[in-house]
Amino acid sequence: MSPMYIGFVAAILGTICWIPQAWKVWATRDTSSLSLASNLMFLATVSLWLVYGIMVTDWPLILANTCAVMAVLTIVTAKLKFG
Amino acid sequence: MSPMYIGFVAAILGTICWIPQAWKVWATRDTSSLSLASNLMFLATVSLWLVYGIMVTDWPLILANTCAVMAVLTIVTAKLKFG
Repeated sequence: MSPMYIGFVAAILGTICWIPQAWKVWATRDTSSLSLASNLMFLATVSLWLVYGIMVTDWPLILANTCAVMAVLTIVTAKLKFG
Repeated sequence: MSPMYIGFVAAILGTICWIPQAWKVWATRDTSSLSLASNLMFLATVSLWLVYGIMVTDWPLILANTCAVMAVLTIVTAKLKFG
């Protein structure tokens, strides 16, 4: 199998994987076991990958990380709101 | 600033960002607000990026995702153990 397919599946999974977590924290309003430090660093990570994607005009990176930034922003907002 | 630096910082941050979360769940034994679906999909994501990195012999990808797989495995194990 070509590495490209592996990378493609990883990019898609990496984009959608935070949606259930974002859904759960807003549905339950429980963020007690989430680490704010981890989620802030992860928000910085996906934001930097988005900037990187824009700088090198890499559309898969831009699309994947735009979705990831939105999902992680939702999680960080919930953590800041519910503590 | 060269995109390479942005990508390098993003790769490092993405590697270490899950360590505080792994530490927190084992210290508190509280995984109630973690989404098992998200963490399983993320484990699959970083595992696929590791396989991809090995297939294209990309050492930064191999190192970053080996660390990420170990951190996320720790979180998933805690979620399965503590519920």
